[in-house]
Amino acid sequence: MFAVPLIERKRDGGALTPDEWSRLVAEYADGRIPDYQMAALLMAVFFRGLESRELSALTDAMCASGARLAADADGPPRVDKHSTGGVGDKVSLVLAPLVASCGVAVPMMSGRGLGHTGGTLDKLESIPGFRTELPLEAARAQLDRLGCVMMGQTDEVAPADRRLYALRDATATVEAIPLIAASIMSKKLAEGLNGLVLDVKRGSGAFLPEVEDGLALAQTMIGLGEDRGCPTVALVTAMDRPLGRACGNALEVEEAFAALRNEGPDDLMEVVYALGVEMLLLAGQERERAAARATLEGRLGSGAAAQKLGEVIEAQGGNPAIVEDPAVLPEAEFVDVVGAAESGYVVRIEPRVIGRAIVEMGGGRRVKEDGVDAAVGLVITVNPGDRVEQGEPLASLYARDEAGLEVARRALREAVTIGEARAGAGLPLVSHRVSKAGVELLA
Amino acid sequence: MFAVPLIERKRDGGALTPDEWSRLVAEYADGRIPDYQMAALLMAVFFRGLESRELSALTDAMCASGARLAADADGPPRVDKHSTGGVGDKVSLVLAPLVASCGVAVPMMSGRGLGHTGGTLDKLESIPGFRTELPLEAARAQLDRLGCVMMGQTDEVAPADRRLYALRDATATVEAIPLIAASIMSKKLAEGLNGLVLDVKRGSGAFLPEVEDGLALAQTMIGLGEDRGCPTVALVTAMDRPLGRACGNALEVEEAFAALRNEGPDDLMEVVYALGVEMLLLAGQERERAAARATLEGRLGSGAAAQKLGEVIEAQGGNPAIVEDPAVLPEAEFVDVVGAAESGYVVRIEPRVIGRAIVEMGGGRRVKEDGVDAAVGLVITVNPGDRVEQGEPLASLYARDEAGLEVARRALREAVTIGEARAGAGLPLVSHRVSKAGVELLA
Repeated sequence: MFAVPLIERKRDGGALTPDEWSRLVAEYADGRIPDYQMAALLMAVFFRGLESRELSALTDAMCASGARLAADADGPPRVDKHSTGGVGDKVSLVLAPLVASCGVAVPMMSGRGLGHTGGTLDKLESIPGFRTELPLEAARAQLDRLGCVMMGQTDEVAPADRRLYALRDATATVEAIPLIAASIMSKKLAEGLNGLVLDVKRGSGAFLPEVEDGLALAQTMIGLGEDRGCPTVALVTAMDRPLGRACGNALEVEEAFAALRNEGPDDLMEVVYALGVEMLLLAGQERERAAARATLEGRLGSGAAAQKLGEVIEAQGGNPAIVEDPAVLPEAEFVDVVGAAESGYVVRIEPRVIGRAIVEMGGGRRVKEDGVDAAVGLVITVNPGDRVEQGEPLASLYARDEAGLEVARRALREAVTIGEARAGAGLPLVSHRVSKAGVELLA
Repeated sequence: MFAVPLIERKRDGGALTPDEWSRLVAEYADGRIPDYQMAALLMAVFFRGLESRELSALTDAMCASGARLAADADGPPRVDKHSTGGVGDKVSLVLAPLVASCGVAVPMMSGRGLGHTGGTLDKLESIPGFRTELPLEAARAQLDRLGCVMMGQTDEVAPADRRLYALRDATATVEAIPLIAASIMSKKLAEGLNGLVLDVKRGSGAFLPEVEDGLALAQTMIGLGEDRGCPTVALVTAMDRPLGRACGNALEVEEAFAALRNEGPDDLMEVVYALGVEMLLLAGQERERAAARATLEGRLGSGAAAQKLGEVIEAQGGNPAIVEDPAVLPEAEFVDVVGAAESGYVVRIEPRVIGRAIVEMGGGRRVKEDGVDAAVGLVITVNPGDRVEQGEPLASLYARDEAGLEVARRALREAVTIGEARAGAGLPLVSHRVSKAGVELLA
């Protein structure tokens, strides 16, 4: 019963020592502390928070519970990106090969979608033959050779976090900023990074809708990264509408391929470039923002980024030709185009409604064990602020049956508001930059 | 995952419906809701509390999870007492037969000691041959025949509470007033009572040391009882020093027997009479306080109460002669008498230190599965406020080995403070009376 007095202390507003956190995590990981004691402790943390020393110790203990991607002192700088998740967020698929094509090593370890947000891993798996489960040794070798790997978080990395996350999901203790920060950073720090860029979403479709919460999370993660020798920067980006047009796994992969052919939607490209600039600066590849942006645009325009993705796909079991010709991606059998019921301005497109509809159509998970249908989703061809005329197409729907189409139609009616008055585009796409120096308002 | 949104709602300060509480308790009792979800919910309740409707529903659901002692419309009124627990608290052993000897049916179902406080069940089991595990049917028959039964809470009564209590004990969620109230009342209401008297302890040795917490608990339990047709009254009594002289199971039984022979220490008798008066009034056996007290004193003085305890002991497998001649109680092999190190006034006797020492000597439980050595303990022959001279006896110690004696000596040195200035007796013995009408200050 080593845990009871610790739960009691946290419950009453006290702090546990770093040693106590280490022991808690180690004993929980090997089953000596039962789920019910950890659940009570997590709920106490939800109410009482964690002091900075506690947060560091928890993060380190979760990271230490598994293996790490060995750092490479002689190789190129290693930088990754993490997003707090959104609807239509296919940024990683474009950003990882793009930044890698600039000479930065990008070990992109991603998670699956859960809830209304998608996951990069599910998107990658819609590419025929693509293997996302790589042993760390193989990942390290590919990173050395290609400068890029895109994979799932293996069982080797931070197993204590995996167990804790499943418990939090079942005990309504997910939405606690220190626990979110520790979970993300324990996995990212296992990648042996020289820098990390965080894409913290805000708005109604974000995991933490309020910008204050997003900023607090960003600052917490930056503190953890910087203290561990991993310079960390965060951008706050808009998730009050889907990012880009495509929502749904294979549809998003197709849009990412288009982006790498320089045919991506503007909002997606802006977010990709903004994050890419930060990655190049952290890597020390560039010293100035404008130069970094020009380098990124050059690599994209030259096809170098698309080629890098092709190499990654080939190395991980897929056919690289898919980047230029995505016809082999899974296709939905039931397709429909929905037009505007009335003329006016698009006032808003609610991402949470779209995300939930995709789950209901079979394209996301209700529980972790669910499989996903990669082909289903929506491509929404209007943006908030756009003028539309009655009958003009709003979206193409992709479903596996008529019922799925009906789900998508209903969601579209609920998600898209058309009003008579001219409307704005919504939240600024990239609104804040957060670093150890503080918060900078960008827009 | 029915429980997750309920945990989330409680976590965020909302209330669950009575139906939701019923379903939660039922599904928890039969294992469909896992311990870890209930643990998270209990911790959320610790922080957020329960609304009155929720508390009622939880109590009813726990009570309904098991069997009840059938009420007896034609028989005598049935009244019980519950204490929040203390050190040296042998009140039940005196009070149950005393009140039963006045014609009230007393179904005394008790728990075991845990932590620094003793339990009536452990005390009873120091009587050779005494059976505390009775089926409800047998208990009901004995109650009809003798008007008194003294037993453990059987597995039949409120099994959901038993499971919940064990979980609370392991998750630092014991000290939540609504959970304490629901736990106690779910078991007491299963006794089919016409009235209930609560002995709520205050002071450093009490489970809830602060009088405000004790009053809040009393009022919560009174509300639950009254709403369910069980008139309930509480007295707040002192636990800033042990009650009576004897601390330790067999030693306390011996002191209880002495009390029934009208040779009990004053403080013990005062608490017994105060609670007994309330029980007789609730039972409708007496209408006035003074008359009730006189009746109790008469039954005690005539030996009727002692005889009633003898009958109960005989019915439950023991030898009734023990009440008059307690020599067959377990006796400790190692005995010592400790004198005062200096002359002065007894300033305080810290009950928690004494209670913990008894556990360490083998007379209490560290974990539920521990057995107890009935013979060990201390008889402290001074009271706070007493003048003592150097060398004058403070206490007799009873242990199973020399190490136990040393534990007791050390505890006595720590627990008993002797000062130069004249000192008071401590908190008033019976300080508040709480009923549905409100709180009455008695001293």
